[in-house]
Amino acid sequence: MESIDTLVTARWVLPVEPDARVLDDHSVAVRDGRIVDVLPAVEARARYDAAETLDRPHHVLLPGLVNAHTHAAMVLLRGRAENLPLEPWLRTAVWPLEKRWVDPEYVRDGTELAIAEMIRGGVTCFADMHLWPNVVAQTAAAAHIRASVGLVVTEAETSWASTADEYIDRGMRLRDEYKGDPLICTHFAPHSTYSTSDATLARVRRLADELDLPVTIHLHETAGEIERSLERHGCRPLARLAQLGLASPQLVAVHMTQVDARDLDMLAAAGASVVHCPESNLKLGSGICPVAQLLGRGVRVALGTDGAASNNDLDLLAEARIAGLLSAGVGASPGALVASDLVRMATIEGARTLGIGEVTGSLLPGKWADLCCIDLRAPRSWPVHDVATAVVYAASSHQVTDTWVAGRRLLAEGRLRTIDESDVLERAAAWSLRLDATAAVEAAANG
Amino acid sequence: MESIDTLVTARWVLPVEPDARVLDDHSVAVRDGRIVDVLPAVEARARYDAAETLDRPHHVLLPGLVNAHTHAAMVLLRGRAENLPLEPWLRTAVWPLEKRWVDPEYVRDGTELAIAEMIRGGVTCFADMHLWPNVVAQTAAAAHIRASVGLVVTEAETSWASTADEYIDRGMRLRDEYKGDPLICTHFAPHSTYSTSDATLARVRRLADELDLPVTIHLHETAGEIERSLERHGCRPLARLAQLGLASPQLVAVHMTQVDARDLDMLAAAGASVVHCPESNLKLGSGICPVAQLLGRGVRVALGTDGAASNNDLDLLAEARIAGLLSAGVGASPGALVASDLVRMATIEGARTLGIGEVTGSLLPGKWADLCCIDLRAPRSWPVHDVATAVVYAASSHQVTDTWVAGRRLLAEGRLRTIDESDVLERAAAWSLRLDATAAVEAAANG
Repeated sequence: MESIDTLVTARWVLPVEPDARVLDDHSVAVRDGRIVDVLPAVEARARYDAAETLDRPHHVLLPGLVNAHTHAAMVLLRGRAENLPLEPWLRTAVWPLEKRWVDPEYVRDGTELAIAEMIRGGVTCFADMHLWPNVVAQTAAAAHIRASVGLVVTEAETSWASTADEYIDRGMRLRDEYKGDPLICTHFAPHSTYSTSDATLARVRRLADELDLPVTIHLHETAGEIERSLERHGCRPLARLAQLGLASPQLVAVHMTQVDARDLDMLAAAGASVVHCPESNLKLGSGICPVAQLLGRGVRVALGTDGAASNNDLDLLAEARIAGLLSAGVGASPGALVASDLVRMATIEGARTLGIGEVTGSLLPGKWADLCCIDLRAPRSWPVHDVATAVVYAASSHQVTDTWVAGRRLLAEGRLRTIDESDVLERAAAWSLRLDATAAVEAAANG
Repeated sequence: MESIDTLVTARWVLPVEPDARVLDDHSVAVRDGRIVDVLPAVEARARYDAAETLDRPHHVLLPGLVNAHTHAAMVLLRGRAENLPLEPWLRTAVWPLEKRWVDPEYVRDGTELAIAEMIRGGVTCFADMHLWPNVVAQTAAAAHIRASVGLVVTEAETSWASTADEYIDRGMRLRDEYKGDPLICTHFAPHSTYSTSDATLARVRRLADELDLPVTIHLHETAGEIERSLERHGCRPLARLAQLGLASPQLVAVHMTQVDARDLDMLAAAGASVVHCPESNLKLGSGICPVAQLLGRGVRVALGTDGAASNNDLDLLAEARIAGLLSAGVGASPGALVASDLVRMATIEGARTLGIGEVTGSLLPGKWADLCCIDLRAPRSWPVHDVATAVVYAASSHQVTDTWVAGRRLLAEGRLRTIDESDVLERAAAWSLRLDATAAVEAAANG
């Protein structure tokens, strides 16, 4: 008998790699935070002596979900910017609120609330883009969730940095601080092509090449963004990035609702990735990313929730479902994406997009034990015919019972273990009162 | 002090009627199954002596949701008909399975599972269209949920009836049996214009006029349906119904993804209602109902989940969210439908569509106490800024804590009271095994 830390046995296991197979009555063996084996339950009992044994008799065990694009702390603005398309949403609602309120305490409280929600929903890794990324990193590390923290870059002066160079310099220090960290990694996160200069983007490119960091950027989110780029730069935003050397395998193009034939060629040739955020794109009336077309050209596509102010939750499982429905009903046709494609996009493709596909995103032995477990025995997802279909089209994120990151259980039978949920909810409510009070005072002053 | 049965006090109450107001810290007083008062909590405590008092301090209390179109028993086919557009979905997957399996026991077990899911999701009334409507009625009555049972009509021979006249005759007997029932009402449910003859539709129309019953029918679900009607009848399906006298306030046109200017005029002039089933329409690649346009012309629009084989759940709250997202991102633009519009569509408009808007669908005193209560204090829906927005765009149906129909609590702090959930899930699993075994035998015989 070989000693291990944890043996989780589930009715179904979806390993995602090497392929979309469904394993019946299998176990995942975990030691020192890593997956050591995936094998039939009967064999596992004979081979492993586990300190902790968990049986999940009507559950599916799968890789933890990867939320490949969010702005975690924006949960504090949940519901405060409704019924607007992207540009007025940013300029009249979000940016003024952020300018007034964003500070390290706000980012800590918002990020922790977001992490609580994501762990509950089976997310084990998120890619963030927000001011005060050092606070995001600290908060994620404290909760023991995996995060790829965006080193945000823009020309706009904020409480985090005054100039694009200062953003980059502070980002570089943060990157150095977490180099080699088992949970926290970093990527460059210039906000968009319209908020960063050529010089800034060129500096980002040089550093990204040197340090081998992904570069995520909001790209081709709306038709208006394309039009303005054509006016100002004489080319589409992706073409501008390509001219600056940023169309590369490191490029993570977030949104891409506007894709013409040349864009498709360019993304495919570059080996770039796309993050599809369907709920946010719909809610802001931005457009719909042609996922099936991108996949057909070999472009990697991952899923993101975007921030909660345009969603309004961080439910990646729901995002996978909407991605499937939109592909069937609008972007392509039924069957163009099947449920197992959506599970892959929600797990391994997210990890690969962030450059960490070798260490998480599937149940291959040797990878970190980043897992989630979903109880399918509930009226809404029962009976189960095809497991991936049940996960994507019937189960709800509330059916996630357990979530592990690097072998540590963060959600145990529905209870958060690394976050004091009551305290987090209370702090969020206090922020809400603060925002309301100021809004009332300002309304009175203006009225 | 006035004696009542139940006093429910919630942080927020959404009465839906007379308007979209949000009532802070209000109570709903219930006696003999009906709402007697909606008033501030402090006044309620002084005025009413309640046998049962419930405090819901971070919850929203609203009318129970109305699922205006489903095929409840199809939950037993959940996940068995994937990745197909409507026509092959029906002809190669659904109809053969139903032909082989549908009998009273199947309908009872499927309907009960569906009701369990719907009660959990805050649904207090559903409109059904399925064979063996007598079993649907019995099962709904036993679970004490409100139902408008569809008196299904088609020319196809099934285990329920051999001819269209037999469908109608059996339907009429069922209607008589439940006449005056406080929970169960009926409506005509011809399957579609392509599966019923002019003579049958004319008979349905005469009876519907005489008995004042709504007529729900799958209508303009796909472009193919329109084309075939033009070929066979020289007109679009809605025009054919109009010629037969069926374009009236009783008409409940389910789906309507294909709407041209004349259709719009015809629906508006007739005072007909539309049921929007966005998830099913997307999943089957059928198209998207132009909800904002219909509402703009004064056409009533309610929401339905359709059956679980094309969804794959019966989550009306999720349906409201997708309806909002689709309107913002595809059908119209952000703000064309706001969250309170979607709450109204999910409640009172559903009730009106089924001809029971005077007795349910809102919190007006005198109506049946059909209520649901949602706990918003969860990471995914906290903090709350706008209540309707939190309900539609952030909360999940799993946050429904309590559901009442006619004053009786069917879900109490997350537990079903009128359904033995374990038993229902077990019977569903047994059906699944039966279907699998037969499929395996048939595959072997064919292979």
